[in-house]
Amino acid sequence: MAYHYSRKLNLPFDHVLSKVNENLQQQGFSVITCIDVQETLKQKLNVSFRKYKILGAFHPECAYKAISLESHIGLIFPCHIVVQEHENREVEVSAISPLETIEKTVETTQLTDLATQVDNRLRVAVDDLHRATSAPDHAEALPTEGLHKDAPVIQG
Amino acid sequence: MAYHYSRKLNLPFDHVLSKVNENLQQQGFSVITCIDVQETLKQKLNVSFRKYKILGAFHPECAYKAISLESHIGLIFPCHIVVQEHENREVEVSAISPLETIEKTVETTQLTDLATQVDNRLRVAVDDLHRATSAPDHAEALPTEGLHKDAPVIQG
Repeated sequence: MAYHYSRKLNLPFDHVLSKVNENLQQQGFSVITCIDVQETLKQKLNVSFRKYKILGAFHPECAYKAISLESHIGLIFPCHIVVQEHENREVEVSAISPLETIEKTVETTQLTDLATQVDNRLRVAVDDLHRATSAPDHAEALPTEGLHKDAPVIQG
Repeated sequence: MAYHYSRKLNLPFDHVLSKVNENLQQQGFSVITCIDVQETLKQKLNVSFRKYKILGAFHPECAYKAISLESHIGLIFPCHIVVQEHENREVEVSAISPLETIEKTVETTQLTDLATQVDNRLRVAVDDLHRATSAPDHAEALPTEGLHKDAPVIQG
């Protein structure tokens, strides 16, 4: 099993970002962090980089249960989702696999069940994007005002 | 190898948080996110939880090199550090082990070298806290105005 779950799309970066936020919310996540790697690398190292954002998705119910079971598990929260534009302009969305992380570290049935639940929700959020690509007319009609516009972009 | 590196301290929570920020900066990290789990769980689920913060530490040079080698590796950035207060008032600081994550997923010599570098820097940041505990008089004299006061606390 891979450490991430990814889909490539032929849609504009901002549109995909908006849709990812929307899908994550539908799956019960709050997008609580958004790191603009392009801007951070420009500021810190003065290098030009392609569009690359790291979202942090937090599922309060699952997080609460998991931390109550294993006090250090907060180290894998929030779950990260990368939205990046490749040189050919394709936009790729990748979600980390919490199940993969859990299985390699603190295997207990309850934690594995929780990780499976979060893993599935992230996959649904990413898979739904693929559906949007298959029906571009519908995709174009999707609302573009996603949570990401309000989510703080923090520069270190 | 464990998925985290931890130290327990008999110092006040805010003091430890401040010192963690300071140590991370000394190791070349920017603390770009800070999630207040106690406050988030109160807001989202109306449950009372102990003090528990998740910091996100970003090392621009290492991040740039790593993403250039493996485009999905941003999924493990920023590196998380948990600062939590246990019921006996002990404060525990835990840093994720990026090396452990890397080794289980995308082993290449260059990436492993980078992960080892980041891993070592995180361990030094955590270990330095332990030194502070061993010399409480000195620890009390440490400056309390760390980056954490400026770092945004984001609520989902």
